Amino acid sequence: MIILSIIRMFRVPKSPAHLSRRKLSDQVVDRVKSWLMAKSMQPGDRLPQEKELLDLLGVSRSTLREALKSLEVQGIIRVSAGRSGGPSVCEVPYETAANLLTNYFYFKKLQADEIYAMRRLLEPEMAATAVAHMRDEDLDRLEELIEACRNPEDSPEGRRSQRLLELEFHNVIARRSPNALLSFNCQFINMILAQQVTIKKVYLIRQDKIDRENDDAHVELLAAFRAGDAAHVREAMVRHMGECSCHLNDLEAVVHQRFGDAVADGPIPDFTR
Amino acid sequence: MIILSIIRMFRVPKSPAHLSRRKLSDQVVDRVKSWLMAKSMQPGDRLPQEKELLDLLGVSRSTLREALKSLEVQGIIRVSAGRSGGPSVCEVPYETAANLLTNYFYFKKLQADEIYAMRRLLEPEMAATAVAHMRDEDLDRLEELIEACRNPEDSPEGRRSQRLLELEFHNVIARRSPNALLSFNCQFINMILAQQVTIKKVYLIRQDKIDRENDDAHVELLAAFRAGDAAHVREAMVRHMGECSCHLNDLEAVVHQRFGDAVADGPIPDFTR
Repeated sequence: MIILSIIRMFRVPKSPAHLSRRKLSDQVVDRVKSWLMAKSMQPGDRLPQEKELLDLLGVSRSTLREALKSLEVQGIIRVSAGRSGGPSVCEVPYETAANLLTNYFYFKKLQADEIYAMRRLLEPEMAATAVAHMRDEDLDRLEELIEACRNPEDSPEGRRSQRLLELEFHNVIARRSPNALLSFNCQFINMILAQQVTIKKVYLIRQDKIDRENDDAHVELLAAFRAGDAAHVREAMVRHMGECSCHLNDLEAVVHQRFGDAVADGPIPDFTR
Repeated sequence: MIILSIIRMFRVPKSPAHLSRRKLSDQVVDRVKSWLMAKSMQPGDRLPQEKELLDLLGVSRSTLREALKSLEVQGIIRVSAGRSGGPSVCEVPYETAANLLTNYFYFKKLQADEIYAMRRLLEPEMAATAVAHMRDEDLDRLEELIEACRNPEDSPEGRRSQRLLELEFHNVIARRSPNALLSFNCQFINMILAQQVTIKKVYLIRQDKIDRENDDAHVELLAAFRAGDAAHVREAMVRHMGECSCHLNDLEAVVHQRFGDAVADGPIPDFTR
């Protein structure tokens, strides 16, 4: 009886006309997703093994593998190797989701002022929601990050690290926001900004006024977090974001997009032509 | 010379120790992305054919196909069939990006008030940015949508359609926002809300007060758009979102998440166990 109902759920129906254009492996993906939802499957739960899936679905091995690959790329399942391995349900990791979304914006030619328009709206509210959820180690980490950025480095490499640490200050806060939408989006914006830092020389010059303002703002924010004062955090963050926006003129207006995860590990190829 | 530099870009290097854990097909994906960026490839541009790619990359056919499948699932390439077909670069469609992001939030148990916290922040600014970009047909469409929702339907199916049309009112505006971040996120929030509408009975009961407020707000917004008055649009939207948030108590607080694109076409399976 269980088997029968599983077969009914799983087996890909003979395609009616309006479905025939959708690839068979994509139909298998839909079926598996429906099945995960209907069964309220949780992260860590295992899918049936390949042989069983082949019987249940009534598709070829290559179609099944294509479907599993699709689910893996989407971050919904993880396929582990070995005798006791196989596909299991997985909570999509932040990095996977953020990288996939970066692809969407690749050709969109985001402007720096558009990124900051979004950041100005979200960051103060996000920070306010995080206040009650900050732990002692988070506050200590914020303090460390402030210290690490206090004396501006002279070398471009040093400056680059400091700019990334300034963004990490905001990520520490975003990771504690209980609002998953605000948390994700603030981290995503920081990721886009961090990619800029690794690409654009313009971020690397010494800008003493900006550095001082950043330091003041971060110090004030940390004090407000330590006091558990959400209203003060919100208000300080509104001011901080306003100042950051004012510095936009120092940056190139057009943001050079990239695929988030590409060339993360390898050397950047030498493209002379 | 061109060929040599392409080979250098493309060929997957013998893995050093820290890379060996990353699957070969994922390394191929990274290479292709790096190559797309370095060559500034545009939507519609073609990748080399399979045979050529095999030579260039020095990997097996199954590894190449897995990598191409991954790029296709990510929405970066489209693979068309037939003799003149093959992989070409593609601008990730909105639907692909939104569905992939829905996967991320599937286990996150978003609360309705979290969704509205985000919506309240973004929607007024998004609408203000869209004012100068609305076309006559957009304004006519907004008017049509207002008319279609004016007389509340009695049947649950009719109510459901009207709720979706109310969300479409906001999507028409979001699609004209020149800020790609605001545009994407407002449409994404509407998509999450629309999924709720298709699932939850609670949205289907007649709520005359809400209906009247929605109608008034949409009429005011349309007038402000017709007048090209961004400040009025922003202000009316702030009020509208505030009213919508107030109605949250009428809704269940926990949002039932789903994978965006699953069971879009097929019948919902009968899961008796």
